[in-house]
Amino acid sequence: MNLEVFILGTSGMMPLPGRFLTSAMIRREGELFLFDCGEGTQISLKMLNIKWKKISAICISHMHADHVTGLAGMLMLSSQVDREDPLYIYGPPKLQEYIAQNRKLLDMYINYEIVVRTVEEGVVHIGDGYRIEAFPLYHTKPCFGYSLIEDDRPGLFHPEKAIELGIPKGPLWSQLQSGSPVVLENGQTVMPQQILGPPRSGRKFSYVTDSLAKPSISRYVDQADVFLCEGMFEHALLDSAVEKKHMTALQAAQIALEANVGKMGLIHYSPRYTDRELKMLLAEAQEIFGRTFLGKDRMIIEIPLKD
Amino acid sequence: MNLEVFILGTSGMMPLPGRFLTSAMIRREGELFLFDCGEGTQISLKMLNIKWKKISAICISHMHADHVTGLAGMLMLSSQVDREDPLYIYGPPKLQEYIAQNRKLLDMYINYEIVVRTVEEGVVHIGDGYRIEAFPLYHTKPCFGYSLIEDDRPGLFHPEKAIELGIPKGPLWSQLQSGSPVVLENGQTVMPQQILGPPRSGRKFSYVTDSLAKPSISRYVDQADVFLCEGMFEHALLDSAVEKKHMTALQAAQIALEANVGKMGLIHYSPRYTDRELKMLLAEAQEIFGRTFLGKDRMIIEIPLKD
Repeated sequence: MNLEVFILGTSGMMPLPGRFLTSAMIRREGELFLFDCGEGTQISLKMLNIKWKKISAICISHMHADHVTGLAGMLMLSSQVDREDPLYIYGPPKLQEYIAQNRKLLDMYINYEIVVRTVEEGVVHIGDGYRIEAFPLYHTKPCFGYSLIEDDRPGLFHPEKAIELGIPKGPLWSQLQSGSPVVLENGQTVMPQQILGPPRSGRKFSYVTDSLAKPSISRYVDQADVFLCEGMFEHALLDSAVEKKHMTALQAAQIALEANVGKMGLIHYSPRYTDRELKMLLAEAQEIFGRTFLGKDRMIIEIPLKD
Repeated sequence: MNLEVFILGTSGMMPLPGRFLTSAMIRREGELFLFDCGEGTQISLKMLNIKWKKISAICISHMHADHVTGLAGMLMLSSQVDREDPLYIYGPPKLQEYIAQNRKLLDMYINYEIVVRTVEEGVVHIGDGYRIEAFPLYHTKPCFGYSLIEDDRPGLFHPEKAIELGIPKGPLWSQLQSGSPVVLENGQTVMPQQILGPPRSGRKFSYVTDSLAKPSISRYVDQADVFLCEGMFEHALLDSAVEKKHMTALQAAQIALEANVGKMGLIHYSPRYTDRELKMLLAEAQEIFGRTFLGKDRMIIEIPLKD
């Protein structure tokens, strides 16, 4: 089952030519999830030139213009595709009012149901085999990070054990493999754990922007396979970052190290940095956490199944 | 005195890669005026890579998302430049509420005064040597076109007439040239029209989108030097255009012909057309009005002084 991260934009504060505002999209078995939606996000999505249909859920970090002003366009674009399920939008207080005002003032011709929910820490969305969790960040206004976490999969099937227990090859094998007990003709019940290895972890994607670097964040993004994190400034500008309630790339790396993530992509760069200058932020982060990379617009990262 | 039109975008309904939403900017002696501001307008402005400081006025045609959702970003961007004068924003009802809601819900950190005015037909803004007029269009909700019209300049100075009337070369000549009467040493009064040719017309720029094609529009854009007009559809789609209260490129050309404009640039193309297919719209329009051109993103059109 495919799980892919599409980085739609990496700029903080304002979009630049060649650097759209920070946003990421996840595709899992054809379902799409969007994290933040600033001005231009729909353009970057079109530039990706991938087949896409409906977005299942949009998760908004906080109510600053650079994270939400693309919503109106994205909601209208979503009227161009057939959909029956509602579109769920999650985010902090004021998001509901923002969307309601946009719909009221702009006549958006939306032909599907939109459900907007104000989030708190915890599970905000449950789907087939995964959940999305929100967790608090520390910015100038209420702000949330998000993780998309897959359910664990049953362990590896050991056919030799099934044969040993006299289970006939066929539908009973599939039933055990999917985690359900079976009853044999002789009345004996076989539990899946008798013929399966230990459960295999689901995959995890975490998204964090904009925030002070707080130790609690590493607990929430613990063991994420891909962790996208704000790395807005070089560490020499720490005081300024703290004042604006942002973090440096080096601090992002400290969180990634503490959380032992698979890899960390930096996002939400200050517009003060050219693409070339971003290498300095990367170097600072890699000193702390080697598996750091520079997020780039329209970068695609596959997260393979674990087994 | 320079007068330039910068086309920032030409797409209708939704931005496309390579075609931002319809917007135009006028630069006159360093002063800037923006007409419409959809998602991505600030990116296109940055791509132009021209020196710019403050925008004096923004004129909004109507309250559809594709014409206003770039405002929040543009207003925030305008906090990055020094300005003392307010920024004036003109448009239909609901614009004031839209901007107020955005400011309330998104904390936009705006460090200058914004004055939002609901327009009616007539002069909406007067500056040094020019005015901006609004006029009604015919769309699914209240919609306005705009013309920026320069004051007429005094006629050409005829030195031979000044010499004939015994006016000494020097400050009195300048005074007459600028349109003021002078009194000679012998007590005789000379009126400027005695030594000046007929007044020379100021320049005119007109902007029309989105609208049904109505004959009244040609009166408002009469004699415009540059007329940007919606040409959303080919004429075979007239019924659909009328239903959606838009016009075809051919209808735009009929308005341009009736108004005898200098040249007409088509804008606000339906996203159904590729750049190559737009040539069909151009051909249809040029059959009616030869001085039609296809507006393109970041096209720059200078309007020379008339003399």
